[in-house]
Amino acid sequence: MGLFSKDIETIDDLIVHTLRDIDYAEQRILQALPTMIEKATNPQLRSAFEHNLAETRNHLHRIERVFEMYGVERQTVHCPAIDGIIQEAGEVSGEGDDKQVLDAALIAAADAALIAAAQAIKHYEISRYGTLIAWVKQLGHNDCASVLGRNLEEEKAADRTLTNIAESQVNVQASLSA
Amino acid sequence: MGLFSKDIETIDDLIVHTLRDIDYAEQRILQALPTMIEKATNPQLRSAFEHNLAETRNHLHRIERVFEMYGVERQTVHCPAIDGIIQEAGEVSGEGDDKQVLDAALIAAADAALIAAAQAIKHYEISRYGTLIAWVKQLGHNDCASVLGRNLEEEKAADRTLTNIAESQVNVQASLSA
Repeated sequence: MGLFSKDIETIDDLIVHTLRDIDYAEQRILQALPTMIEKATNPQLRSAFEHNLAETRNHLHRIERVFEMYGVERQTVHCPAIDGIIQEAGEVSGEGDDKQVLDAALIAAADAALIAAAQAIKHYEISRYGTLIAWVKQLGHNDCASVLGRNLEEEKAADRTLTNIAESQVNVQASLSA
Repeated sequence: MGLFSKDIETIDDLIVHTLRDIDYAEQRILQALPTMIEKATNPQLRSAFEHNLAETRNHLHRIERVFEMYGVERQTVHCPAIDGIIQEAGEVSGEGDDKQVLDAALIAAADAALIAAAQAIKHYEISRYGTLIAWVKQLGHNDCASVLGRNLEEEKAADRTLTNIAESQVNVQASLSA
């Protein structure tokens, strides 16, 4: 987020800065998801990531609306936190390039690692949207809170879906040869 | 987390790697908290951070126990995600060095930014502990799941406490001159 006191002093500054931070984060996620979809083997996981990709586009449209409603220019700021989280997601298993691996448990373990990476991304977004919504509400911008709240609810639902896929399928398969 | 397929192939490898990741993360948080305590102005926030510091020490003791119970050597791995999140926390408001600022709203805004940073840290930990617990349970290590579950519950409680301090005090004060 990069909150330097000289540039960012008021809660209004914080809101604008954090909007730009989550905008950057969603754009980075939009770039990262196609590779995650490609690497995923479990059909439900792949489908969940495809759904995430469509939702991420919607989240960016909503963020654009919030910039307009809040009356500030849309910009992004560099966010080292999401860069680090996505770097970890990118390092998950190179198996995507080599689907010759025949051990189902190893394939499922790579999916389990992808889910872990995706859930770290979701939790980052949940924390940022939660903070932003509390701040805009405090300043009486309930219109912005309502739009951001839709993104937050979708992130929470995506996190729950990933937990379900992990616990009902992927982790079970991954444990079979451990 | 750095999950390279050549070294990390099975769910057991993932568990060991993620334990080392959260160990690294907790150690980085232990280093970061004293500065966050120093920067915090609101007495309840400062007290919550001091409580976090004591809990972080306990979390590291529990992680040490889990390494023993799981039967692997305690090591850390570099985790760019927590580095990025803590980097953002470190960039929050330089006001700690200059408490001469007289505007209560600006002081509260700096506290609000600290809370946001701390909640991003908590959510990272919540996602990692959640993943780890699901994995060790799947392999039947309920003893490890139970110990890690105590850390997870404390992270969730700390996140709720920060939300309460933000919404009942800090955000209200920060909004007064916005």
